[in-house]
Amino acid sequence: MSAFLSISLSAIIANWQLLQARHKKNHSAAVVKADAYGLGMLPVAQALYEAGCKTFFVATLEEGMELRKKLPNVPIYIFHGVGRNEEKEFLSHHLRPVLNSPEQIARWQGKDMPAALHIDTGMNRLGLSETELNAIDVPAVIRDCRIELVMSHLVSASEPDNPLNKEQRRRFDAAIARFPNIPASLANSSGHFLSEDFHYDLGRPGCSLYGITPNSSLPNPMMQVATLSAPIIQIRHIDKDGTIGYSATAPVKKGMRTITVAMGYADGIQRLASNKLSAWLGDYECRMLGRVSMDMTCYDVSHIPPADLEKAESVTLIDAHQTVDDVAKICDTIGYEIFTRMGNRVRRLYS
Amino acid sequence: MSAFLSISLSAIIANWQLLQARHKKNHSAAVVKADAYGLGMLPVAQALYEAGCKTFFVATLEEGMELRKKLPNVPIYIFHGVGRNEEKEFLSHHLRPVLNSPEQIARWQGKDMPAALHIDTGMNRLGLSETELNAIDVPAVIRDCRIELVMSHLVSASEPDNPLNKEQRRRFDAAIARFPNIPASLANSSGHFLSEDFHYDLGRPGCSLYGITPNSSLPNPMMQVATLSAPIIQIRHIDKDGTIGYSATAPVKKGMRTITVAMGYADGIQRLASNKLSAWLGDYECRMLGRVSMDMTCYDVSHIPPADLEKAESVTLIDAHQTVDDVAKICDTIGYEIFTRMGNRVRRLYS
Repeated sequence: MSAFLSISLSAIIANWQLLQARHKKNHSAAVVKADAYGLGMLPVAQALYEAGCKTFFVATLEEGMELRKKLPNVPIYIFHGVGRNEEKEFLSHHLRPVLNSPEQIARWQGKDMPAALHIDTGMNRLGLSETELNAIDVPAVIRDCRIELVMSHLVSASEPDNPLNKEQRRRFDAAIARFPNIPASLANSSGHFLSEDFHYDLGRPGCSLYGITPNSSLPNPMMQVATLSAPIIQIRHIDKDGTIGYSATAPVKKGMRTITVAMGYADGIQRLASNKLSAWLGDYECRMLGRVSMDMTCYDVSHIPPADLEKAESVTLIDAHQTVDDVAKICDTIGYEIFTRMGNRVRRLYS
Repeated sequence: MSAFLSISLSAIIANWQLLQARHKKNHSAAVVKADAYGLGMLPVAQALYEAGCKTFFVATLEEGMELRKKLPNVPIYIFHGVGRNEEKEFLSHHLRPVLNSPEQIARWQGKDMPAALHIDTGMNRLGLSETELNAIDVPAVIRDCRIELVMSHLVSASEPDNPLNKEQRRRFDAAIARFPNIPASLANSSGHFLSEDFHYDLGRPGCSLYGITPNSSLPNPMMQVATLSAPIIQIRHIDKDGTIGYSATAPVKKGMRTITVAMGYADGIQRLASNKLSAWLGDYECRMLGRVSMDMTCYDVSHIPPADLEKAESVTLIDAHQTVDDVAKICDTIGYEIFTRMGNRVRRLYS
């Protein structure tokens, strides 16, 4: 009796195609780091590869090595770049580092494998600062490190009117002018929904492949990808007034009916959702009662006709009634965190 | 370059022994559900077994099947009980269900494997209500379901003065009077620190095995078990005033130095910790700057002498400077959630 996440690979493909269609000039890659945002890197990447996706991005060397087993021939870029003593593994698995710093550039000199160069344009997280870019011999780096892509990362792409977007583009244009004829990449998922001059040669969508909205203030143009269901362990008939769950945070009255469901914070329902999230039994909304436990949550089903309740085996927690973005809002976070933190006990099922 | 969690199995054993010593009358089991609260079920259970622990609890059938491979002969109880069509797997893996409901009792009748019976005493999450207990033929259930343990679960055991503790004990005593000569179990980790009349025959410690405090208002008597370290990907010299991270939530000034570390919310640093948590570089505290990203966090290291900084390869996020309980407080949660949600990219190393 485990919870399960039903993942539609065809919806992921449709989302990639929608992003690819917005990115008319060139190509959209796929960002499949963090186990494809929790949905399963290998099946997701395989599906996108078969649909025509030609370039993949992951965060770490270990992720790249895992993906290489499945996709022997595609370019795979590693966002974290090449760390100390990692050069051999990069080369033997044909992995391309994103070179983020003078140290990483030095490490990659003379290696017989293409790389990307990351220029910081305001994120201040990874990439060469303007000062560092001015200090390097660009033609030598292009040649010695086989730079085949120049990239940067947007700070606030999900806010189209944020003036920082244009400022980052201005800085990126100034930087890439020094890399003539080398493809450039700036747009994450949200960047695909900015004007076309943000698109450059290669898009790097992540979250929106998985159905997460690229712009939380507009209707979500993406298809929903995943449905989260969890089994009902027990139907309870409350036989005296009391409380439910740890620390007695939710009162229950004699005569109420509740269900206990095998989905807790170890599975990915954040403890912050305590007393807030709903589960859905068919089209019946069931309000959570009490704290999220490690392995369970409880819901009020007093309003559900007994005949419907007795038949029920599971509830849904993410579906059309309550999207991953809705769950994120309840937990004061973003859909990315909800998906990436789905627990290992939640079985992934693909269709 | 992955983050890693160094786990001291000897500290887990010492914590189990401390709990066992408080539980003078009888035995303490070990709760190793949710992958031993994220620390690794198989190595943790193996170490505790070798130290003398004789009974284990997990949440789900799947966890029990996995643990059975490692420990062929110990009693393993499954908190969620036996679900529809799960009887065969329980029997073939010698797993003992905790029977939580009349349905689960019916399912286990006549099966040739011991079980526990769960009596609800106020949690209203799993277990027989008083009404349900009164409706069953207790001697028949004991015989037909081979009941070898009667258990309940405390709501507020970490608050020793909460009157609900005594009320639950009173209800539990009334229930177990109907199960003469059958061992009883009530105390979770915190319950071990209540008076001895809460201890009964079998303790079921979980969190405190892993160093989490059993009582957040008193000094923690447990040994710390895990140290979380994450590699520094890049040292940044800020060359112009700006901001750091997504949505520009943290200002940075020209002349500051920052580090970018390979530990983000997909790895277990909750997004809620944005701009709040510290990392430690040796004994230097480094304040987080900006939002937690999926794969990274950034910290201010302007105050660290360049010679110390250049040598540094990693920072610690959980250790003696900042315990798992401290991290939990910053994230408005409990240590259990921090540990159970450590990501899969975080390597577990045992000593």
